[in-house]
Amino acid sequence: MDLGCDSGAFDLGMEVPAASTGFSTTKGGEPVYIVILAGGSGTRFWPVSRAARPKQLISVVDGPTMLQRTVERVLPMRPKRILVVTNRLQAAETETQLSGYRCQVPIDIVAEPVGRNTAPAIGLAAAMIAAREPEAVMAVLPADHFIRDEAGLRDCLQTALQTARNGYLVTLGIVPTRPETGYGYIEADMALRGDGPFPVLRFVEKPPLEQALHYLEARNFLWNSGMFVWRADVIQEELCRYMPELAAELGNLVFGGDVWDVSDLAPQIEALYARVTSQSIDYGVMERSQRVQLVPAEIGWSDVGSWSALPEVVAPDPLGNVLTNTVAHIAVESTGCIVSGHGGVVATVGVHDLVVVSSGDALLVCPKDRAQDVRMVVETLRSKGLDRYL
Amino acid sequence: MDLGCDSGAFDLGMEVPAASTGFSTTKGGEPVYIVILAGGSGTRFWPVSRAARPKQLISVVDGPTMLQRTVERVLPMRPKRILVVTNRLQAAETETQLSGYRCQVPIDIVAEPVGRNTAPAIGLAAAMIAAREPEAVMAVLPADHFIRDEAGLRDCLQTALQTARNGYLVTLGIVPTRPETGYGYIEADMALRGDGPFPVLRFVEKPPLEQALHYLEARNFLWNSGMFVWRADVIQEELCRYMPELAAELGNLVFGGDVWDVSDLAPQIEALYARVTSQSIDYGVMERSQRVQLVPAEIGWSDVGSWSALPEVVAPDPLGNVLTNTVAHIAVESTGCIVSGHGGVVATVGVHDLVVVSSGDALLVCPKDRAQDVRMVVETLRSKGLDRYL
Repeated sequence: MDLGCDSGAFDLGMEVPAASTGFSTTKGGEPVYIVILAGGSGTRFWPVSRAARPKQLISVVDGPTMLQRTVERVLPMRPKRILVVTNRLQAAETETQLSGYRCQVPIDIVAEPVGRNTAPAIGLAAAMIAAREPEAVMAVLPADHFIRDEAGLRDCLQTALQTARNGYLVTLGIVPTRPETGYGYIEADMALRGDGPFPVLRFVEKPPLEQALHYLEARNFLWNSGMFVWRADVIQEELCRYMPELAAELGNLVFGGDVWDVSDLAPQIEALYARVTSQSIDYGVMERSQRVQLVPAEIGWSDVGSWSALPEVVAPDPLGNVLTNTVAHIAVESTGCIVSGHGGVVATVGVHDLVVVSSGDALLVCPKDRAQDVRMVVETLRSKGLDRYL
Repeated sequence: MDLGCDSGAFDLGMEVPAASTGFSTTKGGEPVYIVILAGGSGTRFWPVSRAARPKQLISVVDGPTMLQRTVERVLPMRPKRILVVTNRLQAAETETQLSGYRCQVPIDIVAEPVGRNTAPAIGLAAAMIAAREPEAVMAVLPADHFIRDEAGLRDCLQTALQTARNGYLVTLGIVPTRPETGYGYIEADMALRGDGPFPVLRFVEKPPLEQALHYLEARNFLWNSGMFVWRADVIQEELCRYMPELAAELGNLVFGGDVWDVSDLAPQIEALYARVTSQSIDYGVMERSQRVQLVPAEIGWSDVGSWSALPEVVAPDPLGNVLTNTVAHIAVESTGCIVSGHGGVVATVGVHDLVVVSSGDALLVCPKDRAQDVRMVVETLRSKGLDRYL
């Protein structure tokens, strides 16, 4: 199938009218498809997160789950459609969590047969959207990030939408607040313009601390957020250029009358995922493409990477304790603790800087600076055959 | 009613044949009534213990509750009857926990309208037994103690039974294993005989450490266990002598055809408890009576006074961690912890000497040496109106 890989022309100025969907755009907003990547797995929020219920499907913060919050924060943009890419293990729970929003926006859930990192997921979503509306703009959002300033996010996305409309791959770069060594950075050329978007110079891997301190000072190195905005046809072009095997596989999919229902394509999609290699869109496309622009985002972003990151998203009480999913924390001479009490009461006496988490059938206690080692617990559970607690 | 307080004669040699009850005695054993004091309340096993489910009604150790263990360890003695004195708040749960044993021994449960310490409870039980069989021997046992050597306990009780038969008030004195400053001690005259019983010289209050060290060395100071054996008529006589007001109140109770069913007497018992003062049998009788003898008991006894006492009754694993009610403890670099996981999994990473207890709806974390301060948690819950967690 000809994907238009060799079409050559790349019209930066092309404008496409919003498709009539019954869902209007916000004042001054661009019509947009939202693609939520919700197929992640992880162990760092054990025992609340489990294999079939990873971080995006739990309430790390009180109230809606991370996935629900991701949907809720884009609703004011009146997206044309939300496409959620998840995996089979999590599909049912994803469906349950999103049903309530369908009165506000059409939502489709696509379950990958296996995880192959972000490039195949994004490629599949782009193929579905392009089959209906090739030049539509799509915003790709991870389902498991926290954003305090949601209006700020929407402003950034609107800026990105306009840039994407002109044919760029736009990435949201988070303005660093600390010399983090656990993230990738994006160097932007911020000398010329005010608010951006800015041309991207290069992507850099997780830096050592000295480097990260330099980046923080330099101010034109931003965190790679995994949030992208582009036209469906443009990302398809770049996939053709930089990931031709994946693009070819995706090109073989023939969508039926209702593009959004891919259940008929399940055997083909299964075969596709069995063949394509696991690859991130960052490494596969973003680090190589010449069309990348960056919109800086100062939006109270956190990827909430582990229990110890909870103070980034929940305000500590006067004793420095942070609570979530807890009726009451009885803190007797206890400070700096991170507490998640499964909707009940948690009492701590004379302890400091501990993570204390209950999920009803499992319990975790560790110092904040050991929160990453929760994976060792999960590995031990697996080796002991205690699979129901995974 | 004439209680025989002024009968004067005190026949040390009197023997009474065992009543025919259909329950035979063990080989060489004395027929005995068991009185279990199960009306205690306390907060030190929060969150597992609650107001309506205090220590004696929970499984501090895996398996049967403390009360059930108390019953089970006397069953081989084939007691004539077990009388359990509890309070109204706990009566239903007490009934539930003991129903299964009724095929082995008659069990009666008496619910006090209010707690008045041990003297009224023991006096009431003695009155009930004496109404049926005045010279019957009764053994009084707390419902919330742990005893590792149960056969040893029964041997001690048999020795005590024989001494009690002769008209003595016999107390079991626990051979100390440490210079405990939290218990009362009993000084016995152990110079004359081998295995006892021994005459009691005096009761001493909780001693300072220096004194406790001296007691430990002296070897004739034993812990006051709260376990007593005596004839019903003998304790009644001593109540008449040393607690005449209580004895008079008890003397006004007129038991009906079935002595063991005191439901008809509920209004009189309620009035009695409203009038009598709160008093322990130790202070009210034992410290004053001239008829007290002591049987030393080296039986792996523990009153399991708080979570930190759990290593006294549950063998620690090689890392010094002690588990109860826990499917698995995933201990990553964790030692010396006391873990009770509500039947689930508990994971600890890099923590030491912590108490970690879950009850499903509430959770406690504190260092072992702060386990006594759980009461502060309970007080705080009360002050915050979180009564459902009390």
